[in-house]
Amino acid sequence: MSETTKTRRLWRDIHVFDGLRTLPEPMAVISEGARIVSLVPMREFDEATVEGCHDMGRGGVMTPGLVDCHTHLVFGGSRADEFEARLEGASYEEIARRGGGILSTVTATREASKEQLLELARPRLEALIADGVTTVEIKSGYGLTVEDELKMLRVARRLGEVLPVRVVTTLLGAHALPPEFKDDSDGYIDLVCREMIPAAAKEGLADAVDVFCEKIAFSVAQCERVFEAAEAHGLPIKAHAEQLSNLGGTAMAARHGALSADHIEYLDDAGIQAMRQAGSVAVILPGAFHTLRETQQPPIAALREAGVPMAVATDANPGSSPLFMPTLMLNLACTLFRLTPQEALAGMTAHGATALGLKGGGRIQEGATADLCIWDIDTPAALAYAVQPGRLRQRLFQGELTHAV
Amino acid sequence: MSETTKTRRLWRDIHVFDGLRTLPEPMAVISEGARIVSLVPMREFDEATVEGCHDMGRGGVMTPGLVDCHTHLVFGGSRADEFEARLEGASYEEIARRGGGILSTVTATREASKEQLLELARPRLEALIADGVTTVEIKSGYGLTVEDELKMLRVARRLGEVLPVRVVTTLLGAHALPPEFKDDSDGYIDLVCREMIPAAAKEGLADAVDVFCEKIAFSVAQCERVFEAAEAHGLPIKAHAEQLSNLGGTAMAARHGALSADHIEYLDDAGIQAMRQAGSVAVILPGAFHTLRETQQPPIAALREAGVPMAVATDANPGSSPLFMPTLMLNLACTLFRLTPQEALAGMTAHGATALGLKGGGRIQEGATADLCIWDIDTPAALAYAVQPGRLRQRLFQGELTHAV
Ligand SMILES: [Zn+2]
Ligand SMILES: [Zn+2]
Repeated sequence: MSETTKTRRLWRDIHVFDGLRTLPEPMAVISEGARIVSLVPMREFDEATVEGCHDMGRGGVMTPGLVDCHTHLVFGGSRADEFEARLEGASYEEIARRGGGILSTVTATREASKEQLLELARPRLEALIADGVTTVEIKSGYGLTVEDELKMLRVARRLGEVLPVRVVTTLLGAHALPPEFKDDSDGYIDLVCREMIPAAAKEGLADAVDVFCEKIAFSVAQCERVFEAAEAHGLPIKAHAEQLSNLGGTAMAARHGALSADHIEYLDDAGIQAMRQAGSVAVILPGAFHTLRETQQPPIAALREAGVPMAVATDANPGSSPLFMPTLMLNLACTLFRLTPQEALAGMTAHGATALGLKGGGRIQEGATADLCIWDIDTPAALAYAVQPGRLRQRLFQGELTHAV
Repeated sequence: MSETTKTRRLWRDIHVFDGLRTLPEPMAVISEGARIVSLVPMREFDEATVEGCHDMGRGGVMTPGLVDCHTHLVFGGSRADEFEARLEGASYEEIARRGGGILSTVTATREASKEQLLELARPRLEALIADGVTTVEIKSGYGLTVEDELKMLRVARRLGEVLPVRVVTTLLGAHALPPEFKDDSDGYIDLVCREMIPAAAKEGLADAVDVFCEKIAFSVAQCERVFEAAEAHGLPIKAHAEQLSNLGGTAMAARHGALSADHIEYLDDAGIQAMRQAGSVAVILPGAFHTLRETQQPPIAALREAGVPMAVATDANPGSSPLFMPTLMLNLACTLFRLTPQEALAGMTAHGATALGLKGGGRIQEGATADLCIWDIDTPAALAYAVQPGRLRQRLFQGELTHAV
C-alpha cells in the first residue's frame, strides 16, 4: 500500500490514557495506516489537518489496545464440574479420585487435536478481544510431552493468524510434573531442557520460556536449569514464582535477566531489589488470588517504592483463574491490591508489553503502532471502577478497525 | 394474535437449569408464543411434534432469563473520580470535602432531567440484558425529595418500555438523609410516609417500598414507620438490613411480611428464624461485599439449614457495587460466600423472582413465561465458574427472540 492510500483516522476531544498516565487535557489523535501520527491537545488542534481523515467521532476515552501478558488460553476439557463438586462439599481427595485438578486438564489437552484445541480456545480469545485486548501471551504447559507442548504452541500461533490479535507464545514445559515422571522430577526437567526447549526453538514456536517455581511444582535449582537451556537457545525467560511461598525463585530469575516474575505474593525485599536491578516486570495476577481465596497480598507498596514496573494480567486458565475478562482484572487489581486505576491500566498496556519484551508497545505516542481502544466512558479510571461489558466503542488492531458499535 | 399464528420454537438436546435445579438429562423444550408449552427428556421426545416449529438449535444450556432483584440503576453523575482519588490516597474527609459519597450522586441525580437519567441508565441496563437479564428491579433513593424520587421511578418505568425487559420498581425514599433534613431524620421519615409513599402509590409508580436500616441511615423504629405507611397503601415491603451491624431490622421487616431482607451479613439466628416464618427471601449481594472489602460473610450455612430461599443480585449502584454484570455475581456468590453454582443460579432466577413477589417467575416449566437464556456452555455450573462475556447464544423475552449470536 503506497503512502498516499493509507487510511487516516481522526478522533477529536478524547481523553487519552497513553499507556503510562492519563493526559491532562482532551486530545486530538490521528492514525495513518498502522501508525499513530499525531497526538495534540484539542486547544492546539488545527482543523486544516483534517483533510482526508475518516472522522472517528468525539469524546470518550482512548487507551492503547490492552496487553494481557499472562494467559493459559489453550486447554482441553472443563473444570466447571470440579468447581461445582468442591462447592457441594467434595473433598480434595474425592476430586483427585475423580481425576480432577491440573492433571485432568493435561489429560484432556493431550487427547484433543490441534483443531479441537483451536475451536475451544477461540471463544475465550474472542472474549478477551471483545474486552479490548490487542496483544495476548499464551503459554503451553498442559501437554507435558514434547509433542503435546509443541501442539499447544502451534495452536497459540494459529490463533494469532485467524483472529485480529498479536499472540506471543511462551513454552511452559516446567508447569507440572507429568504422571510419567511421577518419581523423577529431575528426569522431566532433563526432557524439558534437552528436547522440549530445543524443539520449540528450532521451530520458532516459543517467544519465551517460563517455569512454575513452587514446592508443588519445581525447585529453584530445577528452574535455573530450564533457564540455562533457554539462554543456550537465545530465548528470554520468565517465572511463576513466590505465589504460595517464598522460595527465592524470583531473585534467581532476575539474576538471569527475566522479563518478568509473575504472581509474587510472597516476594521479599531481596527479591524486589533483584527485580529492580534486572529491570524485570512484576506481573500481578489478582484472578488467581480471588479464585483461590488467598490472603497474602503481593508487596505492591514496596514494588512501587522500588520503581519495579507492575503489569496486570488475567492468568486466564481453567483451574485457578477461569476469568476471561481483562477489565475485570483492572477492578480486582484496584479493589483487592490497592493499585491505582492508572497503575492498573499501565499494567495492562505499557508494562504488560514490557513483560513480553515488546519495548515501546502498549503506548499511545507519535510513531507507535495504532493498536487502540476507544471506550464509552468519561475518564480512564472508569475502566477499573465499573465492571460493565459493552463499553468498547471501537477497537483498532494495527490501524484496522476490527470492532465498532 | 390468534392461537394458530403463535411462533413455535424448539430446542433439542439442551441442558436445562429450571430455576431451582439442573435437570438430570438433556431435554427438548418447545415454546409457543410467550409460553413454554413442552419440556421433555430427549429420550422421550417425539420428532412428530416438531411440525411447524422454528429450529432453535441443539446443545448448550438453557436457564430462565436472569432476574436481578436488587439494583440502583438510575442515577446521575459518576463516582469513578472518587474511586481513583481514594486509591491515590485521599482520605474520606478529603473526598467528602470534594463533595464525594452518596450525596454527590443525590446532587447529580436531582440536577439531571428525566431524559438525561434515561440515557445514562440505558447502557447500564443494556449491559445487564446482554448478560441475560429479563427481569430487573430498579430502586429510587438518590432523589430524596418527593419530586425527585418520583422522577427516578418514572425513569425506571420508562426503561421497561424502551428495552425488552420487565422492570419492577421500588421506592427507596428512606435510603439516606438528605441535607435539607440534616438534624431532623424523623422529619424526613414523616415526608417519606406522608407524602412520598402516598404520591408513588397514587401514580402507581412503585411496586414495593424499601428502606436502609443501619446506623448510618435509619433506625428500626423509623423503618417500621415507613413499612406501616407502605402497608396503608397496599405496597409490599423489603429492607436493606444487617449489612454493617446487627440492629434487628430484618426481624422487624419479617414481622411485617417483607418480600426480602437484603445484604444481611450480620444477621443472627433470631433474624433467620423470623425470615423463615415470614417466608422472606434473603438477598445476597456479593458485589458490595467485594467493593467495600467486607470480611463479615452472610450466614449462608444457617440460611440454607433453615430453608430460607437465597436470591443473588448485582446491587448495581455507583458507590458500593459499580458492577453491571449478573454472571459475575454468580461467580462472586460461589467464590466469596460458598454458595453452590445451583444455589447461585436459583438465586438469580426462581428466588430472585420470589424476592420481587413474582410467584412462579424465573422458572422453566410448562405454562411458564418464555423468558429464556441459551448459553454456549456445557453445564449450568459453568456460568458461575467462568467469567466470560459473550456466552449468551440466544435470549428470549416473553417468547420474542431479542438476542441471537
Ligand atoms: Zn499462570
Ligand atoms: Zn442496595
